[in-house]
Amino acid sequence: MDIEICAVSGYSEVGRNMSAIKVGDEVIIIDMGVSIQALATYEREEGGVRALSTDELIDIGAIPDDRKIEDWKDKVKAIVLGHGHYDHIAAVQFLAGKYRCPIIGTPFTLGILTSILKDEKVKLPNQFKPLNADTKIKISNDIELELISVSHSTLQCALVAIHSPKGVIIYANDFKLDNEPVLGFKPNYKRLEELGSSNSITALVVECINGTVEGKTPSENVAREMLKEVLLETNTKGKALFVTTFASNIARIKSAVEFGKKLNRKVVLIGRSMQKYNECALSLGLADFYNGVEIIGYGSERKRKLKEINKNREKYMVITTGSQGEPGSVLDKIVNKQLPFNFDEGDIVVFSCRTIPVSMNIANREQLESILKANKVRMFKDVHSSGHASREDIRDFIQMLKPKHILPSQGNLEMETAVAKLAEEMGYTLKENIHLLSDGQRIKF
Amino acid sequence: MDIEICAVSGYSEVGRNMSAIKVGDEVIIIDMGVSIQALATYEREEGGVRALSTDELIDIGAIPDDRKIEDWKDKVKAIVLGHGHYDHIAAVQFLAGKYRCPIIGTPFTLGILTSILKDEKVKLPNQFKPLNADTKIKISNDIELELISVSHSTLQCALVAIHSPKGVIIYANDFKLDNEPVLGFKPNYKRLEELGSSNSITALVVECINGTVEGKTPSENVAREMLKEVLLETNTKGKALFVTTFASNIARIKSAVEFGKKLNRKVVLIGRSMQKYNECALSLGLADFYNGVEIIGYGSERKRKLKEINKNREKYMVITTGSQGEPGSVLDKIVNKQLPFNFDEGDIVVFSCRTIPVSMNIANREQLESILKANKVRMFKDVHSSGHASREDIRDFIQMLKPKHILPSQGNLEMETAVAKLAEEMGYTLKENIHLLSDGQRIKF
Amino acid sequence: MDIEICAVSGYSEVGRNMSAIKVGDEVIIIDMGVSIQALATYEREEGGVRALSTDELIDIGAIPDDRKIEDWKDKVKAIVLGHGHYDHIAAVQFLAGKYRCPIIGTPFTLGILTSILKDEKVKLPNQFKPLNADTKIKISNDIELELISVSHSTLQCALVAIHSPKGVIIYANDFKLDNEPVLGFKPNYKRLEELGSSNSITALVVECINGTVEGKTPSENVAREMLKEVLLETNTKGKALFVTTFASNIARIKSAVEFGKKLNRKVVLIGRSMQKYNECALSLGLADFYNGVEIIGYGSERKRKLKEINKNREKYMVITTGSQGEPGSVLDKIVNKQLPFNFDEGDIVVFSCRTIPVSMNIANREQLESILKANKVRMFKDVHSSGHASREDIRDFIQMLKPKHILPSQGNLEMETAVAKLAEEMGYTLKENIHLLSDGQRIKF
Amino acid sequence: MDIEICAVSGYSEVGRNMSAIKVGDEVIIIDMGVSIQALATYEREEGGVRALSTDELIDIGAIPDDRKIEDWKDKVKAIVLGHGHYDHIAAVQFLAGKYRCPIIGTPFTLGILTSILKDEKVKLPNQFKPLNADTKIKISNDIELELISVSHSTLQCALVAIHSPKGVIIYANDFKLDNEPVLGFKPNYKRLEELGSSNSITALVVECINGTVEGKTPSENVAREMLKEVLLETNTKGKALFVTTFASNIARIKSAVEFGKKLNRKVVLIGRSMQKYNECALSLGLADFYNGVEIIGYGSERKRKLKEINKNREKYMVITTGSQGEPGSVLDKIVNKQLPFNFDEGDIVVFSCRTIPVSMNIANREQLESILKANKVRMFKDVHSSGHASREDIRDFIQMLKPKHILPSQGNLEMETAVAKLAEEMGYTLKENIHLLSDGQRIKF
Repeated sequence: MDIEICAVSGYSEVGRNMSAIKVGDEVIIIDMGVSIQALATYEREEGGVRALSTDELIDIGAIPDDRKIEDWKDKVKAIVLGHGHYDHIAAVQFLAGKYRCPIIGTPFTLGILTSILKDEKVKLPNQFKPLNADTKIKISNDIELELISVSHSTLQCALVAIHSPKGVIIYANDFKLDNEPVLGFKPNYKRLEELGSSNSITALVVECINGTVEGKTPSENVAREMLKEVLLETNTKGKALFVTTFASNIARIKSAVEFGKKLNRKVVLIGRSMQKYNECALSLGLADFYNGVEIIGYGSERKRKLKEINKNREKYMVITTGSQGEPGSVLDKIVNKQLPFNFDEGDIVVFSCRTIPVSMNIANREQLESILKANKVRMFKDVHSSGHASREDIRDFIQMLKPKHILPSQGNLEMETAVAKLAEEMGYTLKENIHLLSDGQRIKF
Repeated sequence: MDIEICAVSGYSEVGRNMSAIKVGDEVIIIDMGVSIQALATYEREEGGVRALSTDELIDIGAIPDDRKIEDWKDKVKAIVLGHGHYDHIAAVQFLAGKYRCPIIGTPFTLGILTSILKDEKVKLPNQFKPLNADTKIKISNDIELELISVSHSTLQCALVAIHSPKGVIIYANDFKLDNEPVLGFKPNYKRLEELGSSNSITALVVECINGTVEGKTPSENVAREMLKEVLLETNTKGKALFVTTFASNIARIKSAVEFGKKLNRKVVLIGRSMQKYNECALSLGLADFYNGVEIIGYGSERKRKLKEINKNREKYMVITTGSQGEPGSVLDKIVNKQLPFNFDEGDIVVFSCRTIPVSMNIANREQLESILKANKVRMFKDVHSSGHASREDIRDFIQMLKPKHILPSQGNLEMETAVAKLAEEMGYTLKENIHLLSDGQRIKF
Repeated sequence: MDIEICAVSGYSEVGRNMSAIKVGDEVIIIDMGVSIQALATYEREEGGVRALSTDELIDIGAIPDDRKIEDWKDKVKAIVLGHGHYDHIAAVQFLAGKYRCPIIGTPFTLGILTSILKDEKVKLPNQFKPLNADTKIKISNDIELELISVSHSTLQCALVAIHSPKGVIIYANDFKLDNEPVLGFKPNYKRLEELGSSNSITALVVECINGTVEGKTPSENVAREMLKEVLLETNTKGKALFVTTFASNIARIKSAVEFGKKLNRKVVLIGRSMQKYNECALSLGLADFYNGVEIIGYGSERKRKLKEINKNREKYMVITTGSQGEPGSVLDKIVNKQLPFNFDEGDIVVFSCRTIPVSMNIANREQLESILKANKVRMFKDVHSSGHASREDIRDFIQMLKPKHILPSQGNLEMETAVAKLAEEMGYTLKENIHLLSDGQRIKF
Repeated sequence: MDIEICAVSGYSEVGRNMSAIKVGDEVIIIDMGVSIQALATYEREEGGVRALSTDELIDIGAIPDDRKIEDWKDKVKAIVLGHGHYDHIAAVQFLAGKYRCPIIGTPFTLGILTSILKDEKVKLPNQFKPLNADTKIKISNDIELELISVSHSTLQCALVAIHSPKGVIIYANDFKLDNEPVLGFKPNYKRLEELGSSNSITALVVECINGTVEGKTPSENVAREMLKEVLLETNTKGKALFVTTFASNIARIKSAVEFGKKLNRKVVLIGRSMQKYNECALSLGLADFYNGVEIIGYGSERKRKLKEINKNREKYMVITTGSQGEPGSVLDKIVNKQLPFNFDEGDIVVFSCRTIPVSMNIANREQLESILKANKVRMFKDVHSSGHASREDIRDFIQMLKPKHILPSQGNLEMETAVAKLAEEMGYTLKENIHLLSDGQRIKF
């Protein structure tokens, strides 16, 4: 019985994640995400990607090319989703239907997926099986699936462990090693060390987004401290106060909400994806800061509320979408006069995020900022810490797990090579037990 | 009686600061610093800039061109130094002698200057007059000089206020608005607001280094949190542990020392400028963390100590020079095998600084890092927060002081324009009361 | 009688050009262009900018803010257009109607404008007065207008000279000093030197786009040589061959057409703006290479022709739009499967242009290229020479004209400062006779 | 009998080239170059790299680590040098002595090497065997060596072909496909096609420096056209005229000399490496433009001549070193007042080169330019075309040779990956017949 991994997608660039692990004659798919490019389209009010067929979406690089595992199609026993970001789950609607198997993930992850499907009016034949982190489930005689708690930048994120008679495969997309995560759990170090010292890990698929970043990713708590300084020590009197961040970063939103309340402002979350992520967190009881916070998606209610805020700007703090300047986001629509709010001189926009460094985001953000600047809005940028492990975190992580093989993933070549070189420093050897796969390539153990 | 300001140097690029303020027929010079370029030469063991004449140093752009105020030479009543960084004080040795007047600064600033002069074997005819921050001194019938406490990235930094019958000139090079500065004083907001509300400030000379940085500069306390995470949560067992930062950043060194002690490592400060700044802080009783800390400059003691550390690397934490990769610094000499320490795999170097973004630093750092990487050293980079006010700090600062005229300084054109635009947003008008001076230009009020 | 210049627009960034020159009580407007940003929207099949009001277009920065000369509105005697690029003429449709005066330009320039107005279904009340280059026209008792031939990157480009009793104003947006322009005239050096030696030029408004580029802009002939190498020495047998360039660069298109004919391929020009510029050049008899060349705009004919080319790709050379990756261009539509042509492996696309370096173009081009690459298309990039004067050209130009005052324009601050510094080197003085105006500012002589 | 290639050096970054090819039990070494970094030190008057041992030079990354082929040491039958650039030959002085074998190269290449050894006062035991391009030599029963003419950016450049019973290995570092090379031969296309169609090439080692550059490298003739425009159409009257380029680029120097003569200026070549390369070309009769041209290296004659030029600047054109701003070059020494020439306002420096994009060069050039600018010197930059094949040249080259395996070399990972992807487009497969080796790795066929 062999183990074979197919690097379906996300191994040649950031985004559009999908992997397939074959144990004997059974296959587990992990993640089905969209491209970073496609992400930019998701906030649009009219919803979704444009009317292309699945094959066309594959051809233009928006979703993973699962034709690469056409020959494995009938062997797929489960689709597992590590966490609820669009680059990990938003292609499920296009691809999952053809596999006769359940979809497994933590309750929050499946909750977000359900919400996407509802928005896109897609019905899937697959069964949904929620699985709590730090528990296992038997998939077949040969395969057991385990989700392991890890910190990242949304809730209920999990490393995926595939247990087989020939060893364990760990899928670590995405994670950081955060000891003060503000909300949710720290990485389950105990379990990781247990697995590592059992010497049973055949292969580790590990993200490389911050592989070129020397050092350790600062904790979410550092971002909280920075946000606190900005919100509580800036003179916001009489001014509109907007915070924009990734809608999925519930810990960050928690911090913002708490500081907003301290300022005696009424906190409103506005935006389609803000609503999606936060109502899910709320309904699952994963966060307790929503008391007194209004959550609004889109449509006429959004317009009404923005009109009201426009009149009483000093009474509100708005947490909203547009952190990447994405067309169709609330901030984009406001500055392009498609929503009834006008920024005045001295109003404040806090970008509690970084610009994801792809050219389209850079262009969109630049455009958004240029209009904000023309309106004399005060901007606070990069009030943020990353959700991705940096070079030294990855080193500690590998040290903990002691995998026999390492498969760098989630990165362009430069990022993946950085992790490959790190592994070489640790005694691994390129091509022997470090494998730089391109999208669509397979490797057998 | 007119007030006239000559933007002697540092108004066309970062570094090499020098300004002259003429009140009636009396002149005050503020700062005499070297260029960032020249700074790179200062850590060299053999000491100092190469054997050029003062005119040659001016011609190659290493020091301010004070020939621009040749006609004011005999009117100079005082040379005032705002704080003890080389780009503000290290040209005193070349230029001050020709002015028959005292040199004034806080005790720490004058202490550093004294130490430089001793190293360079320069004797100056000028009298040294220490002046504590938040006190005033009478210079002449018409001029009173005040130093005002401000936070930055070394100790006893001061804004300089020149009081005259025609109003006050404020010189704000360099500063940040830090409410948790870890060591030393917060900005003297009370005095600043007092001056602002008296409506007496004729002109503000204000630094622009971070003028293009949207938002607020994070507090030194944020850097401390980041450094804490890196030092206390990384597995350093059995490994050498080096922290490099700007020798003058005593607050940062305090943090590093305290975490080093927590790790039960003996802390050693090594490097010519490390010695200079820290012995000065120690002798003036400005910091209390030196207990049990060894401070070593250069020469045979340095070699002996590094040999000892090489043998017992797990027992020490070294805080040292080389944060900019500067030739002649301790880290540079180590990796180029000119000092008896060898980095082993897994040894740790924490860069608690940023690379000052001039091409020579970038090149030097890249070279240093490439050898460290070849030696498989773990690097932690950018564990830092800036000492310079960002755009929104500058806005608050101007708001506080309400100057009649604004003179952006300490920046290249892009940086200074950013501040000019900020001032325009606040109701000032370019050329009318915002003045973008080039080096050597004068303006009269 | 004073001369006053208002730097309406295009003085703070590249694009959106508009200047107004007041002589006594009469005003001449020069250029009314759109922003580079807005340019990206122009190739769209559905046509034009989106349905915003003129005020909204001004607010979002798409067109010049002529409210800055509201008080001059009734004094405007003529709108003069220097050449037919969109950033100089495409805002005429929104702004010109309110001025009761004729629009003046060379026949080619007015031809392009007419074509735009027809496309956009705009009717203007203004009279159109074609004026050949190197001729003069009397505007009023005090004002005479002269167009002077100059080389740039489209046809019939002109420097604008406003003659008044108080001297001459020269408007030099855009130009290069090309002695081998391939098509059209060299700069009228004789007239320029005449004006210069008469010592009568009060002010020169001069473009700065390449102000930071050290040296001299290579001739169009150099681009021709590069294009020749690529087209004639690459093995194109059996492959599709596309050349993309700026539709207005008729000289470049001439070169491409000639090499295409040498390859025995049928040359087809496709694209809305390709049609606009080339049919205008053809109808005015300005170029003689169109024999046997098909020119197609958009609509069903375009689809039919691309289908035909798709079948017989080796028989055609296509010259088309999309050089900036702009959404809606032919290349964009092809790679996004909105037009019936499929690139095959080994097909060739020559980018005979540079990417205009604004973030949205960079993003668009990157996206276009990534799909071309995925289709294994051979790309040849930057087969180009610029149409804008570089630093040393500008020096020679100023030397020739000897203006009393210099107003750098068409550039961001960095570019304009570079030209200001150049002028300083030549003996001019900032603020005295070099004037760095921001959009909306005025200066009186 | 196996063929094995060891990628000794230059496969992980640009520079420091060295490869070893083992055929059965016999080894051929190709190239022994220094790092780009080390290159910066070569022009210094005092000569050579600093006094480090060979092992230390290896440790700091200045020269190839030939300890990687320690086990092959006694099998080496020849050291072959492809062309005379320092990154291909300047480590011979440190490494060749330990191999008991001859050194083979074209007469010009060996001439340059001889000159280096003389300068550095190194005597080598190895025999020198000049071999003309487009001839073969028998090395042993199993190995025949052939040099094949190719264009690049110095004279007598050759591709190296190792013929063995198991096929041919082609080493293509460095080359361009130039059909108008101005001086010297075009690539020997006939022989290349012959080898390709014989289907006998086992492996191709191919340079990747311009692997990311889309398109075709413009011919040297394009650089000549650009240089012609700059030199003949700029007003140089009464001004000093300096051209700086790579001393080895004899074709470029030929162009410059010819235009200098047209200007009726006396042409002087000044600089240690200018002398080295040009006297070698002259003595071998490879160029005929030296008539009336003075060539001066260093020392007192250089000083004397520069003094003379300083007085009669309008009578000379100087071609000299410093194109990379390298410390110790003539231009560097002039601006740092170490040589008796003073640039005046309006003097001209033409950089007929690009800045090799490593951080140290960028820093050096920036510094050089900043002083030239301060002296109001007119600069013309990037008057140049590259000597390295771009992506589409490489495609044509591979197409011509049809190698069974491809080994990208001379590039960092990004550059080598670009070529690997190009090969994939052409039907090759990564890891199967495309091999991305790191320095020190081996591969067996």
